[in-house]
Amino acid sequence: MAPHREGSDASVEAMVAQVEKHPISSILIIIAMQTEALPVVNKFQLIENPHSSFPKGVPWIHYHGAYKGIIINLVWPGKDLTFGVDSVGTISASLVTYASIQALQPDLIINAGTAGGFKEKGAAIGDVFLVSHVAFHDRRIPIPVFDLYGVGLRQTYSTPNLLKALNLKTGKLSTGDSLDMSPHDEASIAANDATVKDMEGAAVAYVAELLKVPAIFVKAVTDIVDGEKPTAEEFLQNLAAVTATLEKVVTQVIDFISGKCLPEL
Amino acid sequence: MAPHREGSDASVEAMVAQVEKHPISSILIIIAMQTEALPVVNKFQLIENPHSSFPKGVPWIHYHGAYKGIIINLVWPGKDLTFGVDSVGTISASLVTYASIQALQPDLIINAGTAGGFKEKGAAIGDVFLVSHVAFHDRRIPIPVFDLYGVGLRQTYSTPNLLKALNLKTGKLSTGDSLDMSPHDEASIAANDATVKDMEGAAVAYVAELLKVPAIFVKAVTDIVDGEKPTAEEFLQNLAAVTATLEKVVTQVIDFISGKCLPEL
Repeated sequence: MAPHREGSDASVEAMVAQVEKHPISSILIIIAMQTEALPVVNKFQLIENPHSSFPKGVPWIHYHGAYKGIIINLVWPGKDLTFGVDSVGTISASLVTYASIQALQPDLIINAGTAGGFKEKGAAIGDVFLVSHVAFHDRRIPIPVFDLYGVGLRQTYSTPNLLKALNLKTGKLSTGDSLDMSPHDEASIAANDATVKDMEGAAVAYVAELLKVPAIFVKAVTDIVDGEKPTAEEFLQNLAAVTATLEKVVTQVIDFISGKCLPEL
Repeated sequence: MAPHREGSDASVEAMVAQVEKHPISSILIIIAMQTEALPVVNKFQLIENPHSSFPKGVPWIHYHGAYKGIIINLVWPGKDLTFGVDSVGTISASLVTYASIQALQPDLIINAGTAGGFKEKGAAIGDVFLVSHVAFHDRRIPIPVFDLYGVGLRQTYSTPNLLKALNLKTGKLSTGDSLDMSPHDEASIAANDATVKDMEGAAVAYVAELLKVPAIFVKAVTDIVDGEKPTAEEFLQNLAAVTATLEKVVTQVIDFISGKCLPEL
């Protein structure tokens, strides 16, 4: 059994070395929901690519365009073919991240989206976090080492200059496939020391690491998990306003990235 | 919003039509753990393919060979690069199913593996189930229609003749990313009417449906979830014996498939 360590920032760093000498030329934005994606699509005047190299029949949608010298690809997993709702959660996020990296070979991934926040950890509605670490809170495997694999704690690609320039909040993200939070989830989220909670981040991070692409996570708070209101109600109530904020911050991130090499972030 | 229905057996059937006229020539066996995979690899004298078309650096392992006129591909997601344990769970299963279908274009997928069983529903240690339906038990999204998407109930590819010929037990499978079972999971598993519980099946079914490949699920019971012993202990205790049984049944399935067209299964 191989020695285990926290994340594998080292291997990503090694691969990053080969692109670190030239400015970032291609980014991939992964967004789970149409409501979250459209403000970004409109802002950058991205166009849907009807000839994406995704397999025939999948609902995944690829938008692309150029902005300040950067090729911007945005992939949204589309509406579930059976149920007609956004294909949220870790499985869809993993698949589109994998297929998009294969097709587009981006220099950097930005996973942007909404999240629940914990007020006890300093989160408020509308806050945007640049995530420092990701982990899962609903993969409990109580066998030695499998337990660590299940939690899957990973450090995100470190961007100290970006964090400072945009004056964003930072914190740890915990990912699970449920919108609600069971007592077991709550205990795992606390163990993960998470400030924000989403349904995709750690899955995107897993695939990005597997294929050795640096990834950053921009998460905007739609609901306070440890607050008074039910999550689903608060989420739907704030979704439109918060996605507008999310678009503004994603634009600031891309403006900052423009013309810079990876180690300058 | 598109009308929603239970699974999409119809769309799979439509795609199946094009291969239904000739005998099944290529199958893909997806197995999550090395201990589960090796007896099958040895039985069919499969050889590891060092030139698989999987991306460089992923731990996924492709074995292949031929048996009674059928090309047999077996894919195992390998040891996690960070933690060194088998890459179990829905994310790895989804990714290898996706990548393997793309690379190998199989006529039929067999997801084989171990599972927990519910004695209240008639399961005993060593039983092998041919699964009738799959669903998730740890994707709770309490928003109308998203709730159904989360559960993701799907009918598996129907093989009444295979079921009868091998005299296998049948039942519903519920999938989640935890080896244990929280009270919330338990309620969802009961709502799913599941006889067996695993960590991959519904994810394999999701991807197989997305790419329109028929899939069947052969699950062997290593532990009784509603029994006295702790799951992890019972699972590890029975793993070797039950994987031997699993190999025997997978062999019987492939013997039955040999020379037949899909609608004859």
